[in-house]
Amino acid sequence: MNNRLEQRLDELYAIGAQPDGGAYRGLYDDAWAQALDLVERWFKDAGLKTRRDAVGNLWGRVDGANKGKAVVTGSHIDTVRRGGRLDGALGIVAGLTAVESLLKDGPPQRTLEVVAICEEEGSRFNTNFWGSRAIVGELDRVPDDITAAMRARGLDAARVSSAARDDIDTFIELHIEQGAVLESAGTPLAVVSAIVGTAHLEVTVTGRPDHAGTTPMTLRRDALAAAAAMIQAVESIARALGPPAVATVGRIRVEPDQMNVVPGRCVFTVDLRHSDLGARRALEQRVRSLCETIASERSLGLEMRVLQEKPPVAMHPDVRSLLARAARESGAHATELVSGAGHDAQVLAARCKVGMLFVPSIGGRSHCPEESTKPEYLELGTRVLQKALQIIAY
Amino acid sequence: MNNRLEQRLDELYAIGAQPDGGAYRGLYDDAWAQALDLVERWFKDAGLKTRRDAVGNLWGRVDGANKGKAVVTGSHIDTVRRGGRLDGALGIVAGLTAVESLLKDGPPQRTLEVVAICEEEGSRFNTNFWGSRAIVGELDRVPDDITAAMRARGLDAARVSSAARDDIDTFIELHIEQGAVLESAGTPLAVVSAIVGTAHLEVTVTGRPDHAGTTPMTLRRDALAAAAAMIQAVESIARALGPPAVATVGRIRVEPDQMNVVPGRCVFTVDLRHSDLGARRALEQRVRSLCETIASERSLGLEMRVLQEKPPVAMHPDVRSLLARAARESGAHATELVSGAGHDAQVLAARCKVGMLFVPSIGGRSHCPEESTKPEYLELGTRVLQKALQIIAY
Repeated sequence: MNNRLEQRLDELYAIGAQPDGGAYRGLYDDAWAQALDLVERWFKDAGLKTRRDAVGNLWGRVDGANKGKAVVTGSHIDTVRRGGRLDGALGIVAGLTAVESLLKDGPPQRTLEVVAICEEEGSRFNTNFWGSRAIVGELDRVPDDITAAMRARGLDAARVSSAARDDIDTFIELHIEQGAVLESAGTPLAVVSAIVGTAHLEVTVTGRPDHAGTTPMTLRRDALAAAAAMIQAVESIARALGPPAVATVGRIRVEPDQMNVVPGRCVFTVDLRHSDLGARRALEQRVRSLCETIASERSLGLEMRVLQEKPPVAMHPDVRSLLARAARESGAHATELVSGAGHDAQVLAARCKVGMLFVPSIGGRSHCPEESTKPEYLELGTRVLQKALQIIAY
Repeated sequence: MNNRLEQRLDELYAIGAQPDGGAYRGLYDDAWAQALDLVERWFKDAGLKTRRDAVGNLWGRVDGANKGKAVVTGSHIDTVRRGGRLDGALGIVAGLTAVESLLKDGPPQRTLEVVAICEEEGSRFNTNFWGSRAIVGELDRVPDDITAAMRARGLDAARVSSAARDDIDTFIELHIEQGAVLESAGTPLAVVSAIVGTAHLEVTVTGRPDHAGTTPMTLRRDALAAAAAMIQAVESIARALGPPAVATVGRIRVEPDQMNVVPGRCVFTVDLRHSDLGARRALEQRVRSLCETIASERSLGLEMRVLQEKPPVAMHPDVRSLLARAARESGAHATELVSGAGHDAQVLAARCKVGMLFVPSIGGRSHCPEESTKPEYLELGTRVLQKALQIIAY
């Protein structure tokens, strides 16, 4: 199994290979279509019945002896630009490899499916979770650019609502951590407890542009000096709140952006995350309140705008227990972890029980050609996934 | 006199007027040439002998009864883009108006000159203090773009060294403050004690770009969070050192500059000024040392590069006394002030005794269309300048 897993990951990674390293498979582009064809052949070779839905999600299915809703595993097939070998791809390949192995013991009691979700990354269009949103019936209007791209792949944008499913019982996704927590802790596997909620704020500080030479420190209204105090506060608040709270100022610009002029305006973004909605809101509240204090102490203007807000999503307790048991029965030590990044599971949670397994990322690197996981951990993750599917479907 | 002063300032401001407000007279451009022609006519009408030197500085001269070096007053004729009505222009117009008044009492004992210096602002080419550097004999090689622009005005770049003079005894410049110190103190006039020394540093902080969701606060190497601490330190150090120390972070950029990525790199500039060279160096030393401490505490890379360094220039004690006496004898209250901005006087100090008078800037505004000074202060500055020229030249 191990060898086949690595081989399939290599084959998939070769599709959309970029001249400067990494691969790019954007929704509905040529590499995307080629990758989907390859996965479809694999599904068929493994004895699965394949089907593409209205947005291009690819399903491989084996019917269970019992009636009832399906157990699904898989992940997304698209990648970021210069993406790595494992993000998304691992969940598809491991799911297929696990189901393929199980089928050698005969057909399951419950229907088993592997899915290659068409898009999660916002890889090509100004959207994300496109595939999973179609599955939970959240898509209705399709933007024009996506409509045209769908048409080029023989897909009819008018039919997207037909991709919705209400016959999934459980969705299990194996994914790389994309952070360095597991590696730092020396832990080979995690059962995800929740996916964090995110708030994106844009903060605008307005002071007065002044001559850097002729304006004494006491007469200044320096927007950047105030922003620096705010950025310090953002970091301190997240540290004080403790894990899994994180807060990041990722973008900043000043005006007029001249060496010899005191900045009159500064705009920066704040990315706030926590797995508990109350704690995420408290984090935001503290950031807002400290920014207000700093601006008011310095007689500066302050505007805070919410750009995006997503609530945290808890993984289903049944699936968490199942995955913990599967790890135990596989002789693996698994910890619990909050996912700081978003995943299809958080969208699918609206319609079914969801759970996730994480394997460590070397150096925490992801979304880059360096993205990598030790082969024994890839094998372990796949083995635990297989055990979980066996427990629940056989 | 008052009326003529304002009228001349208006006439000069109309040349190079910009559609969106303010005026622009760039070195050797059409507006510049037109302004110089106008000032030349004024000089002639006032009974001065005019002469243009090899770089286009315009001199108006009245010979003194005694032999000996000249007493010169004036300022620069070029402007920044969308510049105001007074920067540079005031020194030329007030100098002319003062000398014109004095000549009514007969010829001076010492030679008196008014100068319109061709460039100070870096208004068009990547240079500044072009006119005053020519006067002190500092120019030798002329960049190609300036050579071509000179040719278009009938000036020969090969002759620039002939603009050097060693027959100036004293240079006195009336200028607007371009800051808000006089206005804040309610003082109508200042004798400049020194022009600050400036150091421009570029600071590069190198951390590691990480996923803003998956990287716990404790595992980050956030270049911007560190830079924010440094920017705070820059401000605190200048405040602690007290006036006339100023320190400004005017430019900043981060990489990759994405909302959901921890900044891996941050580059910002520091502008440090002080009138005392030792204090300016101490200021720089403290900034460097604190930046190093912050970078080292956070295990980040740090690089500090000096982009520019200019020593402070003290005004000549004789000229400071002369200007203080002239203010006193004019019944004006004058304070002493350090100039945070650069001026031609600092360059001319290499070859003659220099001194400056400042009048208040409303709201401290300068280098913009809002640049303004109360008419009574313009009149006062001109009157004190005239008194000083009378004391020294008659």
